[in-house]
Amino acid sequence: MDSTLEAKRRRRRGDYPFHLEYRTRWSDNDVYGHLNNSIYAFLIDSVINTYLIQHCGLDLDSVAKGVPKETEKDKTHGHGQIGLVVSSYCDYFASVSFPAVLDLGLRVVRLGSSSATYEVGVFERGNDTVKAVGGFTHVFVDRDTRRPARGGMHGSIRNGLKKLVISDSTSTAKL
Amino acid sequence: MDSTLEAKRRRRRGDYPFHLEYRTRWSDNDVYGHLNNSIYAFLIDSVINTYLIQHCGLDLDSVAKGVPKETEKDKTHGHGQIGLVVSSYCDYFASVSFPAVLDLGLRVVRLGSSSATYEVGVFERGNDTVKAVGGFTHVFVDRDTRRPARGGMHGSIRNGLKKLVISDSTSTAKL
Amino acid sequence: MDSTLEAKRRRRRGDYPFHLEYRTRWSDNDVYGHLNNSIYAFLIDSVINTYLIQHCGLDLDSVAKGVPKETEKDKTHGHGQIGLVVSSYCDYFASVSFPAVLDLGLRVVRLGSSSATYEVGVFERGNDTVKAVGGFTHVFVDRDTRRPARGGMHGSIRNGLKKLVISDSTSTAKL
Amino acid sequence: MDSTLEAKRRRRRGDYPFHLEYRTRWSDNDVYGHLNNSIYAFLIDSVINTYLIQHCGLDLDSVAKGVPKETEKDKTHGHGQIGLVVSSYCDYFASVSFPAVLDLGLRVVRLGSSSATYEVGVFERGNDTVKAVGGFTHVFVDRDTRRPARGGMHGSIRNGLKKLVISDSTSTAKL
Repeated sequence: MDSTLEAKRRRRRGDYPFHLEYRTRWSDNDVYGHLNNSIYAFLIDSVINTYLIQHCGLDLDSVAKGVPKETEKDKTHGHGQIGLVVSSYCDYFASVSFPAVLDLGLRVVRLGSSSATYEVGVFERGNDTVKAVGGFTHVFVDRDTRRPARGGMHGSIRNGLKKLVISDSTSTAKL
Repeated sequence: MDSTLEAKRRRRRGDYPFHLEYRTRWSDNDVYGHLNNSIYAFLIDSVINTYLIQHCGLDLDSVAKGVPKETEKDKTHGHGQIGLVVSSYCDYFASVSFPAVLDLGLRVVRLGSSSATYEVGVFERGNDTVKAVGGFTHVFVDRDTRRPARGGMHGSIRNGLKKLVISDSTSTAKL
Repeated sequence: MDSTLEAKRRRRRGDYPFHLEYRTRWSDNDVYGHLNNSIYAFLIDSVINTYLIQHCGLDLDSVAKGVPKETEKDKTHGHGQIGLVVSSYCDYFASVSFPAVLDLGLRVVRLGSSSATYEVGVFERGNDTVKAVGGFTHVFVDRDTRRPARGGMHGSIRNGLKKLVISDSTSTAKL
Repeated sequence: MDSTLEAKRRRRRGDYPFHLEYRTRWSDNDVYGHLNNSIYAFLIDSVINTYLIQHCGLDLDSVAKGVPKETEKDKTHGHGQIGLVVSSYCDYFASVSFPAVLDLGLRVVRLGSSSATYEVGVFERGNDTVKAVGGFTHVFVDRDTRRPARGGMHGSIRNGLKKLVISDSTSTAKL
């Protein structure tokens, strides 16, 4: 899929396989009366981690409660890996303001052996023009050592993320 | 309506006339794996201001863009008043965690000549037990002078907020 | 120490035994050009938890990394207890705006067997008038069970918090 | 100045002409026990806007209060221009955790006729290794029309930002 700035400006909802709606908050608006640019990072983080929890076996509860990894591994999905952000980016095309409701679309633009790069398109409810396109790169590491696991990301993460990869041909076909 | 701590613990969705659903964000969770207490203040602020914009003529756009008040006053609802928070409170009964979806209920517990005190009940989608009950007191002031207007809050604010006042008798009848 | 609203309005830096300076952030300002009321909750949370970490043996690292409690207990201060917020409050007397630098003062207004109520005074650098006075009540619980420990809060917490209790007589003497 | 990833990893405090210290907040830590990646965007925004206010005549007060531009123009610095973020980026090299105190260094990497690209280096007090390097591009627009001004950015902005430009030769000399 074309990742030039001009191509990003033309993103549509259909370019993203996974979507979540987010209501903006009063404090999201800065003194200029529109969403502060940093807020997009919060939203991008949220849609990506929601997908990881719902479709890739990320288990926040074990992290927060300090459940021993051995116990966790007995569970169907539990894999003891978490994603750390190593780089992030965002291009802003038009502003949005509280109390707008946003629609966030998610796809994976690069799937490596232990890392994944995401792209999120930010749309406003009732409007087809993309407002911002951003994302980040996750490196998946062992929850306790915080080092990449030998063998790369766990199978349940890879299988979940694969569904969000849109190859150039698919994308071209769509256009 | 009973405002003791025990009464608040028993709040139900039906106790609130206005509702909005809010998706939690990744960053809302603190290191203990649940919503940081401060996040509830953001949510409370958001549901109250959404109501003020949609039903009481609060015009954020004029504020942010510095539209002269005279121009603003020509519009149906424009009244040049904004609400400043003078005190806030919240009681937390049970924790919620990202990626939960929350349902916020809003009512007005006291409507004065230039001030209003709100109560917001925080519920989790699919669960009838209230998680937190909080709110704050707004004093309505002139947008430019930041002083309470002579004559108190504008009629369009008062009319909008009146619909959220639940008198004791109504509430008792409901129980 | 007098906790009426009028008394709070007269708080001075000297009424608080522990102080931290906080630089405001761009995003703290809302559309009205001053700190959003919710931001004070972040600041209050920050000064209280900094004190708990530095003077009461709160060990966030063990929480986040899921270190087994037995290991943690071997350390001098490690006690496996964390504070959960059960109620919060704040009174706002005057606004402050980014890029102001704030000075936060902390004291303990009530020290129970397993709970503590804090009061934080918010001052602006170079200005003696208090801008806001708020705080919350912590119940100290076992990190894993999230239930209050039998025997109440750990000795290292109690000893640390005792130093922040200002009795009425002290306070009166000061006035 | 070299802007490859490897070069960024080697940034030192001396590579940045303007510095501000920021205390982290409790809520900055996410469930993994370190600063959430989105928080860096808040900090980057804060150091840049502080510089614009203190050294480039950015006047937030006029924005928030809706002061007519004509009045504003009479003031020495008032120029009625604001910066809108059009793209942002950040590379994360090592994590930091509340209650760390951060030192943020700022420089300008590209100064165009109506836009500027900044780079911020994030350091932890007492530690010379850079933790993250990020920034964004501002386009300076008229406060009211939100369009780039004919003639580009105002002279007082340009003069202020020029002092933060480190040319390659300077930088090479330093190395």
